[in-house]
Amino acid sequence: MSDNRINKNQPVGDELHEECGVFGMYDFDGGDVASTIYYGLFALQHRGQESCGIAVSETNGPKGKVTSYKGMGLVNEVFTEENLEPMHGDIGVGHVRYSTAGASTRENAQPLVLNYVKGTLALAHNGNLINAAELRHDLEYTGAIFQTTIDSEVIAYHIARERLKSSTVEEAVGRACRKIKGAYSLVVMSPRKLVGARDPYGFKPLCIGKRDNAYILASETCALDTIGAEYVRDVLPGETVTITPENGIVSDLSRALPKEQEARCIFEYIYFARPDSHIDGVSVYASRIKAGRFLAMDSPVDADLVVGVPESGNAAALGYSLQSGIPYGTAFVKNGYVGRTFIKPKQSSRESSVRVKLNVLKEAVDGKRIIMIDDSIVRGTTSDRIVKMLRDAGATEVHVRISSPPFLWPCYFGTDIPEREQLIAYNRTIEEIRDIIGADSLGYLGIDRLSEMADGLPICKGCFNGIYPMEPPKEDIRGDYER
Amino acid sequence: MSDNRINKNQPVGDELHEECGVFGMYDFDGGDVASTIYYGLFALQHRGQESCGIAVSETNGPKGKVTSYKGMGLVNEVFTEENLEPMHGDIGVGHVRYSTAGASTRENAQPLVLNYVKGTLALAHNGNLINAAELRHDLEYTGAIFQTTIDSEVIAYHIARERLKSSTVEEAVGRACRKIKGAYSLVVMSPRKLVGARDPYGFKPLCIGKRDNAYILASETCALDTIGAEYVRDVLPGETVTITPENGIVSDLSRALPKEQEARCIFEYIYFARPDSHIDGVSVYASRIKAGRFLAMDSPVDADLVVGVPESGNAAALGYSLQSGIPYGTAFVKNGYVGRTFIKPKQSSRESSVRVKLNVLKEAVDGKRIIMIDDSIVRGTTSDRIVKMLRDAGATEVHVRISSPPFLWPCYFGTDIPEREQLIAYNRTIEEIRDIIGADSLGYLGIDRLSEMADGLPICKGCFNGIYPMEPPKEDIRGDYER
Amino acid sequence: MSDNRINKNQPVGDELHEECGVFGMYDFDGGDVASTIYYGLFALQHRGQESCGIAVSETNGPKGKVTSYKGMGLVNEVFTEENLEPMHGDIGVGHVRYSTAGASTRENAQPLVLNYVKGTLALAHNGNLINAAELRHDLEYTGAIFQTTIDSEVIAYHIARERLKSSTVEEAVGRACRKIKGAYSLVVMSPRKLVGARDPYGFKPLCIGKRDNAYILASETCALDTIGAEYVRDVLPGETVTITPENGIVSDLSRALPKEQEARCIFEYIYFARPDSHIDGVSVYASRIKAGRFLAMDSPVDADLVVGVPESGNAAALGYSLQSGIPYGTAFVKNGYVGRTFIKPKQSSRESSVRVKLNVLKEAVDGKRIIMIDDSIVRGTTSDRIVKMLRDAGATEVHVRISSPPFLWPCYFGTDIPEREQLIAYNRTIEEIRDIIGADSLGYLGIDRLSEMADGLPICKGCFNGIYPMEPPKEDIRGDYER
Amino acid sequence: MSDNRINKNQPVGDELHEECGVFGMYDFDGGDVASTIYYGLFALQHRGQESCGIAVSETNGPKGKVTSYKGMGLVNEVFTEENLEPMHGDIGVGHVRYSTAGASTRENAQPLVLNYVKGTLALAHNGNLINAAELRHDLEYTGAIFQTTIDSEVIAYHIARERLKSSTVEEAVGRACRKIKGAYSLVVMSPRKLVGARDPYGFKPLCIGKRDNAYILASETCALDTIGAEYVRDVLPGETVTITPENGIVSDLSRALPKEQEARCIFEYIYFARPDSHIDGVSVYASRIKAGRFLAMDSPVDADLVVGVPESGNAAALGYSLQSGIPYGTAFVKNGYVGRTFIKPKQSSRESSVRVKLNVLKEAVDGKRIIMIDDSIVRGTTSDRIVKMLRDAGATEVHVRISSPPFLWPCYFGTDIPEREQLIAYNRTIEEIRDIIGADSLGYLGIDRLSEMADGLPICKGCFNGIYPMEPPKEDIRGDYER
Repeated sequence: MSDNRINKNQPVGDELHEECGVFGMYDFDGGDVASTIYYGLFALQHRGQESCGIAVSETNGPKGKVTSYKGMGLVNEVFTEENLEPMHGDIGVGHVRYSTAGASTRENAQPLVLNYVKGTLALAHNGNLINAAELRHDLEYTGAIFQTTIDSEVIAYHIARERLKSSTVEEAVGRACRKIKGAYSLVVMSPRKLVGARDPYGFKPLCIGKRDNAYILASETCALDTIGAEYVRDVLPGETVTITPENGIVSDLSRALPKEQEARCIFEYIYFARPDSHIDGVSVYASRIKAGRFLAMDSPVDADLVVGVPESGNAAALGYSLQSGIPYGTAFVKNGYVGRTFIKPKQSSRESSVRVKLNVLKEAVDGKRIIMIDDSIVRGTTSDRIVKMLRDAGATEVHVRISSPPFLWPCYFGTDIPEREQLIAYNRTIEEIRDIIGADSLGYLGIDRLSEMADGLPICKGCFNGIYPMEPPKEDIRGDYER
Repeated sequence: MSDNRINKNQPVGDELHEECGVFGMYDFDGGDVASTIYYGLFALQHRGQESCGIAVSETNGPKGKVTSYKGMGLVNEVFTEENLEPMHGDIGVGHVRYSTAGASTRENAQPLVLNYVKGTLALAHNGNLINAAELRHDLEYTGAIFQTTIDSEVIAYHIARERLKSSTVEEAVGRACRKIKGAYSLVVMSPRKLVGARDPYGFKPLCIGKRDNAYILASETCALDTIGAEYVRDVLPGETVTITPENGIVSDLSRALPKEQEARCIFEYIYFARPDSHIDGVSVYASRIKAGRFLAMDSPVDADLVVGVPESGNAAALGYSLQSGIPYGTAFVKNGYVGRTFIKPKQSSRESSVRVKLNVLKEAVDGKRIIMIDDSIVRGTTSDRIVKMLRDAGATEVHVRISSPPFLWPCYFGTDIPEREQLIAYNRTIEEIRDIIGADSLGYLGIDRLSEMADGLPICKGCFNGIYPMEPPKEDIRGDYER
Repeated sequence: MSDNRINKNQPVGDELHEECGVFGMYDFDGGDVASTIYYGLFALQHRGQESCGIAVSETNGPKGKVTSYKGMGLVNEVFTEENLEPMHGDIGVGHVRYSTAGASTRENAQPLVLNYVKGTLALAHNGNLINAAELRHDLEYTGAIFQTTIDSEVIAYHIARERLKSSTVEEAVGRACRKIKGAYSLVVMSPRKLVGARDPYGFKPLCIGKRDNAYILASETCALDTIGAEYVRDVLPGETVTITPENGIVSDLSRALPKEQEARCIFEYIYFARPDSHIDGVSVYASRIKAGRFLAMDSPVDADLVVGVPESGNAAALGYSLQSGIPYGTAFVKNGYVGRTFIKPKQSSRESSVRVKLNVLKEAVDGKRIIMIDDSIVRGTTSDRIVKMLRDAGATEVHVRISSPPFLWPCYFGTDIPEREQLIAYNRTIEEIRDIIGADSLGYLGIDRLSEMADGLPICKGCFNGIYPMEPPKEDIRGDYER
Repeated sequence: MSDNRINKNQPVGDELHEECGVFGMYDFDGGDVASTIYYGLFALQHRGQESCGIAVSETNGPKGKVTSYKGMGLVNEVFTEENLEPMHGDIGVGHVRYSTAGASTRENAQPLVLNYVKGTLALAHNGNLINAAELRHDLEYTGAIFQTTIDSEVIAYHIARERLKSSTVEEAVGRACRKIKGAYSLVVMSPRKLVGARDPYGFKPLCIGKRDNAYILASETCALDTIGAEYVRDVLPGETVTITPENGIVSDLSRALPKEQEARCIFEYIYFARPDSHIDGVSVYASRIKAGRFLAMDSPVDADLVVGVPESGNAAALGYSLQSGIPYGTAFVKNGYVGRTFIKPKQSSRESSVRVKLNVLKEAVDGKRIIMIDDSIVRGTTSDRIVKMLRDAGATEVHVRISSPPFLWPCYFGTDIPEREQLIAYNRTIEEIRDIIGADSLGYLGIDRLSEMADGLPICKGCFNGIYPMEPPKEDIRGDYER
């Protein structure tokens, strides 16, 4: 990942997708939080571009009155001064969402807003539960109805039911978290409390910020920077934090696991998170520089220029250059205007999707041996075209280096990885992949380098080695509840 | 009510509002029903103009797959060829909705589509429950969450819970109906059954139609005519009907009350329903002609011309004319282009809302003594302006006759009647009202005439005399769950 | 035409179309006129539903600054508080437009706003020129460019060119009017003058109104009533009126023809105009009543009930009833919610366009001999269906009476009449037409009755007898400039 | 300029704006060109983001039938499959437009489509005429009317008038070009010819491409790359090219000036053009690298890291690094999701526009002496904030280098430079500017380096030294015709 982040609404090639970004805010001074949530979500836009929403409440207003607005599209498309202006409230949550095609409906947009025994609740969730189907099943057998296909509704039901046996909403959240399994970073707004919770493995990030007399919960620290808040700390894996004017931040760590059992998603560092974010104290940018350095150490090659595939390959390319001493350069120009409604070239047309979005700087690559760094190859459908573009522009050699290991296994925790059969690395040797993409050489980051990349934090390597921090579901149940 | 029905999106004056229209269809031959539901809803548009929706399912398709689309606005605004075309299904339900301002949100649009223990369910509801708040409360105390503020969600929960103890969905519907109190005409689509239910009082209409090998449930017979279906019969008060290819229509009358306890809403005949509809065998048009005749008998006056306030006053005016022998005429021209986005004249401007929507035919009224028939006076805010317009156009006398008794009490069953204090008849004599609206004389239909109007069917007269067929709730709970 | 006017956006059957409505206003007190123009256009909406526009200017503002807004759709769809609010100006013009499909583009929406040698000009035009093609040709041969396909651009060019030789804008308008041939009612806004002009034949209406210190020009008096203005007089055929604060209304009658050469379009009375309008002193409503009376005199038949095809047949039906003594009744209910985006039933579907829009009141017609009055039959495509609907509802006889003579010839002056071959009356006897529509008898209004209908005013009968007040163009040039 | 181009719809700071991009295509094989024009415009989107349009024609279709579509917004917002699909034609032109706020209306969108003496014409224009006001005036004095405020309409009039004296459209274009003064790159579509013309100074670029049997005219070569066309050559300053199936490309150089009088806009190289484009044979990317090298030579400073302000500063930063040996790095992360409807933070809010769009990579800059390269400083409103952001992130020194000379004079040829009084360099020394933006040192590119940057091509330096290639108009007439 590099200097700039481009509109990924219509990504160049076959990229992975994050499933959500969450944001919560509580201004103890009573100021309206909706517009700050808007900017916070805007900073988290890269985590989900399909839908977004904001829900706010006035802690001193009529009990349980929640004002919310959700829609399909980018934050700047869904929200206007017209619909933001009437959203009054000193407490609120926001959400940006990516989803697989089937369930990309307005009904599934978050935050989920609901009435329950104690009034109202609004919920924003990032992650994927592995026992959602079971839990839905169980809930239905006690008379529950489901109006969406999102895990958040399952979580909400558990909070509502646990609330009956709990003296506080945070206790209910904690109890609910014990029932759900998988990845979740959760922000819950009850009428007078903002509650954050992170699963015990720490799959998904969640941090705490402060601005004047207001507290913030956000998926990434870049959202804190954007709104001018200071970083306080990360919510810990397995922690529930409760934010109130009376007690500030109150922590409950009773769900926490021994540190070594934690399992952060390494793709946050490799690709998902913004490079200016820090997750659990580790700079995303620095981790990418490191990945590039490791590649230079482990897969050296003699060449004239190191270039990154924009945007996410640029930081690793810089790392490779710093380590190897081979100059860093720019080989591509990306068209940043591709938006949601962009018409993709048809197969039959003379235009190609890759060309329309990416062009090569002939001057930069002509006559040179190029090391091209990308963050990952998923299906490999565009890599061969990019390599060919470099050759057409006069590159004499093209060496491809990937700042992550090869994908081989599904992810059950919120990353949208295609079927195994569609993964280029599945059942293929490195040499075979190199041949397919037409590179002169190909090198991947070693699995053993991943923990170093994240400064030694325990990470989940499931998508690389099939070993998951918890038993995955028997069958892939994603999409089961689509309608 | 007369020959024509005008776009009531922005009514001329202070009219009453119906809260919904429902429509269901099951084509045993497997044909798609969505476009027919579209035309059916279009025929029921007068029953609700704020939002509408359609949900369909393929009985032989993947289990529980429901395709639905809902939106704010008129049927022809919400639905396009683009969004209707992909709605495949041989079973489906549709809904048009009017609501009070606060809860006029997309979330509250119907049909309600949900997953529950037995798969999916789609629900369309017309009416108002009087124990919804209680039921919500009870449900919440067993862990329910609510995402809308509509009664349908309460009903759905009960069906889902009763389903656990029932062997069929229709049994669950029947059991649920025993828990809910108030007015409801209900159309429920389960994966392979279409179920209709009507409350024991028969407040709201619901009829059955047939076209070839398809069955239809609809709020009014005009929807059957529109789609070229034949009328089969009305669903009876307290009846549950289950429609399947195997058994056709199966009736369960176990919820039925003795006929004399039934209590149809007389306003369906007076104003809500389309004049070309028949409700429980009684022609709406004929009942309005009768009301006019009764007025002529009970409040006779010597005059030159009988005119109706368009549209709903026209049929009664014709009845008055037929009975009295005084010629029927046309005094008003209504501008039919007032749509949802029409900008109402400001108080301060020289234009008036009444003038913009209604003009007088000077030729028709100049120099004449006029009997002007309207279906009701609610707040009375426009009646005085219309009377004045007639006088300005040269009418020498204006006698006002109203084809319903004076409103004095709230309705708890789905009609949006304003606060008592706002009702012109509240705490006023007829003479005082006449004085306010500036008429030469004023006559209302007698309460005793109402049953005759409906061919002797038992009716609810609650809004006229405060005597309701069931105990009303202690406090008006409508809007309580608004957010 | 009757009591009410329904949204004709998607007319029931094969109706004729008017091509425009114009409105101009100049408030000598400096008040903003845009919102009043909005209501004025709203009252003229029946004259054109495809596009509309408003242009205003501040007579004391920066010279030549015109603010305008135009769009496709109804007045209440195109204009919002948001786009109306910033339109400041004490002088302005507005326009509603109907057009044939080909040229129904935003570019062609009016008013036409332009810069020319003397600053700015805004133009709204109702009518059709017969020498527009010639004039375009001539203009092009002196270097003109055309950005629209509307006659208004030709007129504007002439005004601009004549302005070079004229000392005032009204002189230029007058000179331009001498070059153009055909039907035109014109409202022109120059920076500090409002100018109205009507062709010497008086084909299209144009009237003058006054409200406080503001003058209004409008296609119909109903627009004056709507905005609370008083009627001053009609602009005379061949007259140019110039409205300024200095001189009030200044008339130039130098283009006027002898009265007997005038040739008003009779369809304004028969169908186009709103019944509450007066054109050249003749009440549209009264003329329709008369037409009905003439039909009763000239085509009497014994029957039980006279009904009108809504809306435009109702007034003539009343006239027929008054003359014949046969009771007037209502046989049809029209669905008023058909809007621009309404999806028409496909030929293949079980629904029919006529049924969806019109239903019969069985109670009203069952067992009766019906006289059904309509204003015209164009192609006859719906008449047979309506007759059949009456019979299906139990009518024992259906006698059709048409309140205009049969169409046989094209109109060159602004009425959209189909090709001769498509006219039902072309090459057919009355008996043959009767047979096609399935009526028991059929009667048309006699051509000789038309002048009486319009109180003796000279009228154009071209579409009935092929005799036009001026030589028509050799070939139909409409659409020639479409792109 | 660097690797990537970000959505500039809402630029970070105070940038300059280009006024247009043009594109034309003629497929001699008769294939439809609209979708290729779409992708071509998409590649030129950086040249104008306010409106865009496409007009196409079938050379073998009905004479003069042009299908066009224009709208406000980005190419991917304005065009959809729905409105592109029906645009059939083997010849066409397209346009993207930036404009100053006042005239940013749909009326002014291009291409301009018109009828004139020889049928139809469509015109797309990039540049600014300096005698447009005079020409308008003259045209008006011979009866012209203007419906837009764009220069293209003036050009169109001249083509139309000259066409009367010319035997071909290209001759008319040539003649018209002799009357207009200023900057223009012009693409004209006549029914069977595609004509391109460039002003004698060559202010604005225009190149020729070929794909199979189709010819293309485009503002930049990046549009050729995008659609897979090969670069043929640039249209020469002062040249008119006519493209027909019969004769291929026919050149008329009679308007050309001696080469030394040419005056290309240097800002195309510095900032406007995409780095992957070549203009008149010079690589934009290479010229930016060179500018960076010159800065390193002329304004050297000892530091640890060279960074560019994204996007346009990156290439020059790379050049500086290459020349100086100081490592190149990335200091900023830009949020690429800022779109047209993005709500800018209010002055009063805690969020700042700069922060929302740009964040600093603390890891990259902490403890380092930074050389920050930007392409220009206009008002200087954001430079100080960016410098401060670097310092806050730990930079010990911030040296600013600008890859262009200071702006001091207005541009009359199509670049939107603010009033002199608003330019930071106006009446200030370099030292004073340095002080304002808070840098440790500040260096601009020398004026003498500009020609070298463009490989010795003659360039216009008017905005730097006030010496223009032709006499500028007495007063700034831009916006004069706004309405």
